[in-house]
Amino acid sequence: MSSGPEPHIVIVGAGFGGLEAARNLADAPVRITLIDQRNHHLFQPLLYQVATASLPTSEIAWPIRFLLRGHKNVTTLLGTVTGVDKGHKQVLLDGAPPIAFDTLILATGARHSYFGHDEWEPYAPGVKTLEDATRIRRRILSAFEQAEWETDPERRAEWLTFVIIGAGPTGVELAGTIAELAHDTLRGDFRNFDTRSARVILVEAGPRILAGFTEDLSAYAERALNGLGVEVRLGQPVSECRADGIMLGGEFLPARTILWAAGVAASPAAEWLGAAADRAGRVRVEPDLSAPGEPAIFVIGDTAFVAGADGKPVPGIAPAAKQQGRYVAGLIKARLRGKPAPPPFGYRNAGNLATIGKRAAIVDFGWIKLRGRLAWWIWGIAHIFFLIGLRNRLAVALNWLWIYVSGHRSARLITQREPGGSQDAR
Amino acid sequence: MSSGPEPHIVIVGAGFGGLEAARNLADAPVRITLIDQRNHHLFQPLLYQVATASLPTSEIAWPIRFLLRGHKNVTTLLGTVTGVDKGHKQVLLDGAPPIAFDTLILATGARHSYFGHDEWEPYAPGVKTLEDATRIRRRILSAFEQAEWETDPERRAEWLTFVIIGAGPTGVELAGTIAELAHDTLRGDFRNFDTRSARVILVEAGPRILAGFTEDLSAYAERALNGLGVEVRLGQPVSECRADGIMLGGEFLPARTILWAAGVAASPAAEWLGAAADRAGRVRVEPDLSAPGEPAIFVIGDTAFVAGADGKPVPGIAPAAKQQGRYVAGLIKARLRGKPAPPPFGYRNAGNLATIGKRAAIVDFGWIKLRGRLAWWIWGIAHIFFLIGLRNRLAVALNWLWIYVSGHRSARLITQREPGGSQDAR
Repeated sequence: MSSGPEPHIVIVGAGFGGLEAARNLADAPVRITLIDQRNHHLFQPLLYQVATASLPTSEIAWPIRFLLRGHKNVTTLLGTVTGVDKGHKQVLLDGAPPIAFDTLILATGARHSYFGHDEWEPYAPGVKTLEDATRIRRRILSAFEQAEWETDPERRAEWLTFVIIGAGPTGVELAGTIAELAHDTLRGDFRNFDTRSARVILVEAGPRILAGFTEDLSAYAERALNGLGVEVRLGQPVSECRADGIMLGGEFLPARTILWAAGVAASPAAEWLGAAADRAGRVRVEPDLSAPGEPAIFVIGDTAFVAGADGKPVPGIAPAAKQQGRYVAGLIKARLRGKPAPPPFGYRNAGNLATIGKRAAIVDFGWIKLRGRLAWWIWGIAHIFFLIGLRNRLAVALNWLWIYVSGHRSARLITQREPGGSQDAR
Repeated sequence: MSSGPEPHIVIVGAGFGGLEAARNLADAPVRITLIDQRNHHLFQPLLYQVATASLPTSEIAWPIRFLLRGHKNVTTLLGTVTGVDKGHKQVLLDGAPPIAFDTLILATGARHSYFGHDEWEPYAPGVKTLEDATRIRRRILSAFEQAEWETDPERRAEWLTFVIIGAGPTGVELAGTIAELAHDTLRGDFRNFDTRSARVILVEAGPRILAGFTEDLSAYAERALNGLGVEVRLGQPVSECRADGIMLGGEFLPARTILWAAGVAASPAAEWLGAAADRAGRVRVEPDLSAPGEPAIFVIGDTAFVAGADGKPVPGIAPAAKQQGRYVAGLIKARLRGKPAPPPFGYRNAGNLATIGKRAAIVDFGWIKLRGRLAWWIWGIAHIFFLIGLRNRLAVALNWLWIYVSGHRSARLITQREPGGSQDAR
C-alpha cells in the first residue's frame, strides 16, 4: 500500500469481471489493488454441483492471490468495501482506512432477489456463494435423514418433497440433479422408505422453462426433466414461502426443502455511486462502461446494466463479465498511452448452455443449436476448459467420470449446522 | 425401526470402532441400528491436512449410510444420543423416542481436553471434526490475510506467529505443515511481507516430542521439524491461552493463531452408564470390553480404557478401535451361536507412524524402525491404503502428488466466518 508514481487502479470484486480486468492490466505501468470480501474466486456456473453433493468446494474455488501471484503489480486484499467517496476518490472499507484510487472498477456482482419478500430467504435459500451451496447441500441431505426417522407417511412425504423456484439454467440444473440424487445416487442407502418416492417440483411463473433459449430447446429441456421425474409447474408465481411449504396459485404445497433460483439483485454499487439503476439495482453505465459523469469509475459484470449492439441488455453471465473486464482494461491502457478511446463496448454472444442431469443438455451457439447427449458432452468439455488450472480440471473430470460410471457422488457431507435451527440438529 | 425376531444391536458412533463392529455383524442374524451425530465417517488421521489446506473435506469423509448400503440388516440414523437407560435397555435421544436394544455398543470417541481450562477453547481450537478443521484452516489463512493489511511490524509479527500446543503426532503434523505453508506454498502470494518471516512454535510440556516413540526417533523428528523452520519449546506447560498469545514459563508469547493438540477427553459414555472412569473420562471396561456389570453393553475405541496384554493401556488410535470393534462383533456372534466366549481382548500393535512435513516421517513397527524419506513413503502409502474406496484413494493420491511436485495446495478456502468474531471478518 505504499504510494508510487504509477496510477493506482482499485478493483472491487474478484469474480469473472474483476479478475479478468486485473489480469489484463497486469502488464501496464499501473499499481493495482484488488479487494474482495472472500479469499477465493468462485466458478459460479458449477456451484449448483456443490449444492447437490457432486463436487467438493475446493474444486471450483481458487485463492485469488494465488491466481495473481505472478503479477507483482497486483496487491490482493481480503476486505469489505462499504462505499465510495467520489469527491476524494477513495474506497471506504469496514474496519480499515480508506484506499485512494486514480481509477476504480466496481465488479461487485449480484445476490438473489426475493422481489420484496426478503422474509422468504431462511425458507428458500439461493445459491451464490460456497456457504450458500453447503447450506443447500446440508438441507437436501438432511431432508432424507429426517425421512428415515419419520413414521407418519404424510410427514415423510413432506420431507421428500423438493421445490425449486425459478426455471432458469440454475433452477433446471438443481432440479435435474436433485432428481438424480433421489432416484439414483441415494437409492439403496435408506431402510425405511424408497428414495425414488421423492418428488422434485420445478416452479416457474413464466410460460416456459429456460426462457433465454428458443421454444423448441426449452420444450426439449422440459421433456428431459420429466424423464428424470421432475414435475414442472408453469405460469403461476409463488405467493408465499414457509418452513413447511409454498403457496402456489392459491393452493398450499407442503415441502420441507425449498430452493430459490428465481431472481437476482445487483450489489449496492449504484447506491455507493448515487447513480441511476435499473429495476434489479444495476448501474446504468455509459457505452464505455463508465459510471454516468464519472470517467474514472467503471462498473462491470452483474452489477452493471448496458445494452449490447442488438439493443438487448447484456446478460448476467460469466462470458459477458469477462468481456467487460477485458474491455475496461484495454480502455484504461489506451488512456495511459494517450491513445484514442476504443469504440463502445459490444457484447459477443459466445453461446448459451444449460444442462439437465448427467445425460442431456441444450446448447445454442446462434449458428447451431444442439440437444441431448452430444450437447451434454459439449457442455461438460466447455466447463472443464473454463476451469482454471490443470489440477482442478483433472479433479473435476475425475469426479464427473466417477458419477457418470458409478452413480455415486462423493461430497455427500452434512456440515455446519444451521444456527439455532432444529431442522437438521436432531 | 420395525421390531423383528432377531436380536437388536444398537451401535452409537460410526468412527473406526463402531463402523468395524457394524460391518463384522452384518452377516449375523441380527438387526443393527447405527446412530451417529454426523452423517459421515471421518478418516481422522488425515484431518490435520484439511486444517492446513492440503485436502478438501470430502476426500477424508464418507456418508455412513453409503458405506453400509450393502448391509440390509443395518439401519443408519443421524441423531444425538443423550443417555442410556440400563434398566429398560434403551438408548435415549435428543428429539426422538428412545430406541430399545438387546445389545449396545458405545463407540462415541473423544473430544479435546483443556485440562480444566475450557475457557481456552475459543482461543486454541483443536481438530477432531470437519468443522474443527475448516475453522482452523480459516484461522491460519486469515492470519496471513491480516498480516497483508497490517502496517505496524510488531502487530504483523503477531499475525505471523503460529503456536501449536502439544507435540504428539497431530501437533507435529500441524506444525510441520504450517511451516511448509508459510515457507513454500504461500511464498510469492503476498506483497507487503515475506511469508517466510512467519514463526511456527511447537510447545510441549513434556521433555521431548512424540513421546510415544523411542528417544532416537523423537530426536530425529525434532531435527526434521527444525529443518522446516519450526521452533520446538519443551518442558514447560502453557499456563494461559488468550486471543493474542499464550503464557509459557511465566513469559508472554504474542501469537494470533493458537492450536490445541495437547489432550483428549472421552465422550460422556461413562456418565451415561454411571461407570467408573479413568482420568480422561474413559470407561474402565472388563477384559471382554463390556461395561462393568453390564454384559450386554460394550464400550470400545477412544471412550474405553483397557490394558493390553503387556499391561500398558491400549492407545487411542484407529487400529486399536478397529480391533476392538471386530473383537466385540465376534464375541456377540459367538454368544448368538451358543459358543464359548472368546479369550479377553488383546491389542496387536500394528506400528506407530508420524509424519513431519512432506519429506520426512518416522515409523516404528517394533521389529524395525525407519525414518526419513522411505518412512514418509511408507506413511503415505499406508494412509492411502486405509482410505475407503478407490475414488478417494485416487483423489488423495492426486492431491499429494500435486503438492509434492508443485508445492501448491488446492484447498486454501476461507469459509464460514466466525460467529460474532471480528478476527477474520474485515
